[in-house]
Amino acid sequence: MADFLTKKEDNYAQWYNDLVIKADLAENSAVRGCMVIKPYGYAIWEKAQAELDKLFKATGHVNAYFPLFIPKSFFAKEADHVEGFAKECAVVTHYRLKNSEDGKGIEVDPDAKLEEELIVRPTSETIIWNTYKNWIQSYRDLPLLINQWANVVRWEMRTRLFLRTAEFLWQEGHTAHATREEAEEETKTIIDLYAYFAEKFMGIPVLKGFKSDAEKFAGAIDTYAIEALMQDGKALQAGTSHFLGQNFAKAFDVQFTDKSGKLEHVWSTSWGVSTRLMGALVMAHGDNNGLVLPPNLAPIQVVIVPIYKGNSQLDSISQTALKIKSELEAKGLSVKYDDRDTHKPGFKFAEYELKGVPLRLAIGPRDIENGTIELARRDTLSKETIAIDKVTDYAVKLMKEIQENIYNKSLQFRNDNSYTVDSWEEFKESINNRGGFIYAHWDGSAETEERIKNETKATIRVIPVGNNNEEGKCVYSGKPSKQRVVFAKAY
Amino acid sequence: MADFLTKKEDNYAQWYNDLVIKADLAENSAVRGCMVIKPYGYAIWEKAQAELDKLFKATGHVNAYFPLFIPKSFFAKEADHVEGFAKECAVVTHYRLKNSEDGKGIEVDPDAKLEEELIVRPTSETIIWNTYKNWIQSYRDLPLLINQWANVVRWEMRTRLFLRTAEFLWQEGHTAHATREEAEEETKTIIDLYAYFAEKFMGIPVLKGFKSDAEKFAGAIDTYAIEALMQDGKALQAGTSHFLGQNFAKAFDVQFTDKSGKLEHVWSTSWGVSTRLMGALVMAHGDNNGLVLPPNLAPIQVVIVPIYKGNSQLDSISQTALKIKSELEAKGLSVKYDDRDTHKPGFKFAEYELKGVPLRLAIGPRDIENGTIELARRDTLSKETIAIDKVTDYAVKLMKEIQENIYNKSLQFRNDNSYTVDSWEEFKESINNRGGFIYAHWDGSAETEERIKNETKATIRVIPVGNNNEEGKCVYSGKPSKQRVVFAKAY
Repeated sequence: MADFLTKKEDNYAQWYNDLVIKADLAENSAVRGCMVIKPYGYAIWEKAQAELDKLFKATGHVNAYFPLFIPKSFFAKEADHVEGFAKECAVVTHYRLKNSEDGKGIEVDPDAKLEEELIVRPTSETIIWNTYKNWIQSYRDLPLLINQWANVVRWEMRTRLFLRTAEFLWQEGHTAHATREEAEEETKTIIDLYAYFAEKFMGIPVLKGFKSDAEKFAGAIDTYAIEALMQDGKALQAGTSHFLGQNFAKAFDVQFTDKSGKLEHVWSTSWGVSTRLMGALVMAHGDNNGLVLPPNLAPIQVVIVPIYKGNSQLDSISQTALKIKSELEAKGLSVKYDDRDTHKPGFKFAEYELKGVPLRLAIGPRDIENGTIELARRDTLSKETIAIDKVTDYAVKLMKEIQENIYNKSLQFRNDNSYTVDSWEEFKESINNRGGFIYAHWDGSAETEERIKNETKATIRVIPVGNNNEEGKCVYSGKPSKQRVVFAKAY
Repeated sequence: MADFLTKKEDNYAQWYNDLVIKADLAENSAVRGCMVIKPYGYAIWEKAQAELDKLFKATGHVNAYFPLFIPKSFFAKEADHVEGFAKECAVVTHYRLKNSEDGKGIEVDPDAKLEEELIVRPTSETIIWNTYKNWIQSYRDLPLLINQWANVVRWEMRTRLFLRTAEFLWQEGHTAHATREEAEEETKTIIDLYAYFAEKFMGIPVLKGFKSDAEKFAGAIDTYAIEALMQDGKALQAGTSHFLGQNFAKAFDVQFTDKSGKLEHVWSTSWGVSTRLMGALVMAHGDNNGLVLPPNLAPIQVVIVPIYKGNSQLDSISQTALKIKSELEAKGLSVKYDDRDTHKPGFKFAEYELKGVPLRLAIGPRDIENGTIELARRDTLSKETIAIDKVTDYAVKLMKEIQENIYNKSLQFRNDNSYTVDSWEEFKESINNRGGFIYAHWDGSAETEERIKNETKATIRVIPVGNNNEEGKCVYSGKPSKQRVVFAKAY
């Protein structure tokens, strides 16, 4: 099974694409740039969704749903936003088809042209703030803490499964506040929540920080991001939380009466994570045998494979296996017993390795005699044999251990691939030969940032939060710098 | 609060619209025909989704996600389907906007015209069967039991919140089978599942049956539906399950090798329920005070309102209220304690009646002295006072009782509004004066069906399943009939 995968070290991009397809996560569809998320991939996304949704609700957010379409004119209302989002997008111009005159097909009915074109939402700030206008009159109506799970469309020219697709699934939070401080606090709460999710559930350590002006969200005052390091040394932006100031409130004229009776524009934030996280999950942990899923997001946490000849052996093994299955399920684990007679154990082993199932149990006739069972961990590929009556507690313990190990391995990788660099030569050599996160001084100018990008393809991933503000000289221009920032090539 | 609602008996349509808006379920958006589902409405939909999703998974289905867009040519592949679905739809013709020449806005870039227009999915059979073609080669790949939660768009001219909107949310199941029998069985499994959900969760009794050829899904061999009776005597189709035969497999050339090595076209089904169910929920149970939500779908099942003067009274009441809240929550109930000091108890009572909260608890200082609490049921509007230490168990019991009572009341209403009719005069009088479900003989012809519809607006809602096949004469034509069918005016 694993033979069908391109090796990671031979061609990382091809390895990624192979793995996404062969592990049944997703595939390209007949529509350019749009993917089909297959059941196994969707099951992982559902688990991620459920956990994120719990975290949103625990922090006081509620879900709602806003229209798929946005009138074209709405985009023109916020100057930066229109530049960032209203360009490469899907435009609905007509609302009817008719039979072709030649009778052979259907065609757009020219009589059914929309007066104003509709844009398939690339992000929903505009339609939501146009709605909030009617919901907010007084400070009593604030804060509004609303999230939406939705599909969005951005017409990307070069697409890659999960990482960059024309249509993708995401959640977008849009909150409204009475004060600047409260909105800033919300922005931070959410980036912390995203970091928590990435680390505790996805098993991926992330850097938290601000984006530079060049990299921030079109329409934001500040963008916080979490950045993860992939195994090829490139960074992946895994979530963003934007402090929007009063920009959208002003664009859509959303004002409220504060406690003192004064009319003020509302302060706002927006934030989102998307199916791009699936790409991060694959690239952060996968190996040449396939996916390595953290137990906290694995649709199947334990698989049990019987090793048998003939039905009577299978019957006796199945009895034991099903007992273990129900014991594990009683402990809250999701377990699959794979007794298909169409495939051999070796094939099944490879299949579940490919699919990243954290723990595999195998039982043969000798195990039944000896009261033992074989365990194989996906993360370490190590095997051991233990007594059957110990397996339930041990598997529960292993889930925690595997989750932690996956995270620690990722953290170790990031540590090993983070460099402090003080000269331009070293910077170039580092970014070209080693990749990784480069901590370097930057003079804070957009020009320098742009030049570094042009010369090396490296961008500023984050301006770290809570940095010790060590002063220095810009690695490129030699001008004074207030703190190191993190550069990397990025997805 | 209830004074703001139009009375149901004065103008049912207006009452419905008022209620949806004032109970904060949904509102019209800036985009014609598209609604905003507000947090309270969305919370109900989320509960319905979660329960349906559990039922789908318990019957072996998995979720996946297919593209929002469908190439225009796909619709032309199934002859009936194109007539039914590819007409009134949103058509994407361009993929880019540009700044207007006058610099004042943005406009569609004529250079970014798509070679083939994309249709925003009105339903996904075509794109899904085009995908299944690559997934199915052998009988071993079958059955495929896949569901998707998604938004769809049908360009409706006259829209009504939840009941008929251009964009709506739904789930669509698309299954593939090796045999006709298995696909037919699936169709029935699902319509039974929908009926179970409607009755046990929504508290709405439904009639199950076939659709006539005129009313069935475009592309189906048979459509099963569940039909519910609203309080104005009109029927509402609440879910459909289609046996598609080999139509889509043939249109998209999806064949498999069966066990004997023979190449066969795959058999299929599709089925869906949508946010239309929200409209049914409102119309089936609501009254002139507002919504009446069944506990199984109510986002807030119990609300506790303190009745107090001054902070010291509030403190002592809050202590008791929060204790009750946590006891109820420990029993799995969702509880809100509303201690807002901005609104009087009477206002709150009316608000939670409007929002259909099944059970309201009120505690004042005298209750604290006496160790009592007042309960008010939303379904019966009855009140009683009981000992505080009994309230948890009683509330749990009441949830079940209220759920059953809501269903029984609906069932009683349906029984009172179901008529067996044997003459055309009686039919017309019944449908015009009383509405409801009319059981009448029909000769089975599309012509008769059409004439009855033109003369009375009544349509055949279902051809009941498991009818006793009582023979008779068509109420309209006098020709022989094999069984009674159910007529009604419908949403």
